[in-house]
Amino acid sequence: MAAFPDEEYEQRLEKTRARMADAGLDALLVTDPANMNYLTGYDAWSFYVPQAVVVPLRKEPPLWIGRGMDAESARLTTTLPRDRILSYADEYVESPVRHAMEHVAGVLAELGLGRGRIGYEGDAYFFTARDLQVLARGLPEATLDDAYLLVNWIRTVKSPREIEVMRQAARIVEIVMRVAIDAVEVGTRECDAAALISEAQIRGTAEFGGDAPANPPSILSGDNAATPHAAWSDRPFRAGTATCLELSGCRLRYHCAMSRTVWLGRPPDDVLRVASATAEGMEAALGAVKPGALCQDVELAWRETIGRRGLTKPSRVGYSIGINYPPNWADHTASLRGGDRTVLEPNMTFHLMLGMWMEGWGFELSDNFRITETGHELLADFPRQLFVRE
Amino acid sequence: MAAFPDEEYEQRLEKTRARMADAGLDALLVTDPANMNYLTGYDAWSFYVPQAVVVPLRKEPPLWIGRGMDAESARLTTTLPRDRILSYADEYVESPVRHAMEHVAGVLAELGLGRGRIGYEGDAYFFTARDLQVLARGLPEATLDDAYLLVNWIRTVKSPREIEVMRQAARIVEIVMRVAIDAVEVGTRECDAAALISEAQIRGTAEFGGDAPANPPSILSGDNAATPHAAWSDRPFRAGTATCLELSGCRLRYHCAMSRTVWLGRPPDDVLRVASATAEGMEAALGAVKPGALCQDVELAWRETIGRRGLTKPSRVGYSIGINYPPNWADHTASLRGGDRTVLEPNMTFHLMLGMWMEGWGFELSDNFRITETGHELLADFPRQLFVRE
Repeated sequence: MAAFPDEEYEQRLEKTRARMADAGLDALLVTDPANMNYLTGYDAWSFYVPQAVVVPLRKEPPLWIGRGMDAESARLTTTLPRDRILSYADEYVESPVRHAMEHVAGVLAELGLGRGRIGYEGDAYFFTARDLQVLARGLPEATLDDAYLLVNWIRTVKSPREIEVMRQAARIVEIVMRVAIDAVEVGTRECDAAALISEAQIRGTAEFGGDAPANPPSILSGDNAATPHAAWSDRPFRAGTATCLELSGCRLRYHCAMSRTVWLGRPPDDVLRVASATAEGMEAALGAVKPGALCQDVELAWRETIGRRGLTKPSRVGYSIGINYPPNWADHTASLRGGDRTVLEPNMTFHLMLGMWMEGWGFELSDNFRITETGHELLADFPRQLFVRE
Repeated sequence: MAAFPDEEYEQRLEKTRARMADAGLDALLVTDPANMNYLTGYDAWSFYVPQAVVVPLRKEPPLWIGRGMDAESARLTTTLPRDRILSYADEYVESPVRHAMEHVAGVLAELGLGRGRIGYEGDAYFFTARDLQVLARGLPEATLDDAYLLVNWIRTVKSPREIEVMRQAARIVEIVMRVAIDAVEVGTRECDAAALISEAQIRGTAEFGGDAPANPPSILSGDNAATPHAAWSDRPFRAGTATCLELSGCRLRYHCAMSRTVWLGRPPDDVLRVASATAEGMEAALGAVKPGALCQDVELAWRETIGRRGLTKPSRVGYSIGINYPPNWADHTASLRGGDRTVLEPNMTFHLMLGMWMEGWGFELSDNFRITETGHELLADFPRQLFVRE
């Protein structure tokens, strides 16, 4: 059973074929696990070995190619016809003498693509330098074109069904963030808070469960709050420190992210100042969101607002978000930053991520928003304040 | 604070330089996050953007190169001198006009390696086809050599300190598997069992906490038990079905994996037959483990034993395991399978993974073992039986 009805995948494939035609491609070799799922429904933790979905330009079903033991997952989670699910023998896995892309090249040749123009995802996770080399050796007369992000740009505008699922992820993250804020207490180990957060993420709601998000809970306490991607530790939370929580709900691999900050004790003035400027900057950024505006407009509104409060932020303030697998929940297309002239369209979804990583502490505030016909809508509903536990 | 004392990293770097000298390399560009951690202690969820550790052949500290916001994580988790922690501006992240490997190429050139021989990890996760192309363009006079698995082979034999940490991971997985077996009950949703499992993995023990493992809990119930990597769902566990649980404890990113199977109701004869043959096959495989034996000997002992019971398994029965990040906990070096002539040495650690994926159901039994001076030692202590809940 795929997550969505057939017509949803048909629409996605139609858009993909249109972009392939524009790019002059006869076929697209999709190896990004999120794109494989997006186009066929395929969902399994098998992307640690080579696998691919081949989308021919001709209007016919895609092919799935993967490891033998995972073919049953393709049968269980896609609506591909049985004869479009191919697999390679286990001897290809982590072998010093064989490579799975040899097998994939053979399949492409059998499809009559040996002299065709084939797109690949050149900068996507899990498409390695050697994957391309082996593919090129196996298809010496084909033209291999880097079609990185071709599918990701389609993913950037969500369908009504996708928005519905992201709303479910939003219900999950509302629960998760409440659990997280309650768990941050002086003396509690960071790992014990992480455990409760993960439990809430996966349990979801009584109506629908959660998935393991593409990014693990980010629990940045004390010195770690000065940097966004540190791991949690066994250390207990301490009084007089910030704890930044960047969390998510994940439903059918769609994410709704949210960040909030807890201060244990009485917050110093500079923390209050950054918290208030960040909240004000978020209002300004959201105020700039509407169809037709550019990504850079949103960042500019933020930058000017916090600039008036004497603050700067050297990194982007957000990015397109949706369906994904580890290590990251972003769509890898549009960013909210200076110079990004992507035009905002209804049903794009962004994670507006305002991480202020200071010297020895930090403050984070973030939410997912959807672009509406007239402005924006926040997907989750949660107080946007500094949480203080005296 | 790195996870281990300086001398541990020094020993690892010394072994790396020796292999680099054998391969004629002037420098090694390490991009596999597990290898970056192994050589420097660097631990952060930042591997979704390009990053690298450069190991020069000259005996001098490695360099860390990553995104600006992550440099603080390098300062917090490594003992690298401050001037060996370099970073690139945020404009390089997910940019249509810049690529972080341009920056890395520039650093390598500044190090005097513009005409040197530089090793890269050609088939490792997170080193993309485009990474290599950009690197080659930026270093037109350098020789780029595929040194994939150079560090992984060193990782394959664990140090006493690593074994100690893997024993801690074993304590965690013993707790986790007990929680999991108790959670599999008729009517409970799969996601609710996954939530409790994840909570136990991260909470760890009272003495030490756990990390988020490289593979999420694998909870394969009903039809999904016929394939190893399906995701959990919202569906409740049903009577008359198998549930295969492939789980782990993770401590300081080192893994101890374990699989067990629960049958809800009265197990049919063929399930009992496969369970008993698999347990017998495991005994035979473990009996073949000793220093000097080859990986293929272990698989042969298994194959002959289950063959006498009329069973076959088309996939490998295990692999080297240790430190890693998502999407996979394997070392990607030695496999327990026919044709793998890797010689077993003391302090290698393997996941002996006996997954029997049948038509519409499955049975899994697995454990981590360490090779001792005379034979093997199982890292975790847990009953090796089919768990039946009538």
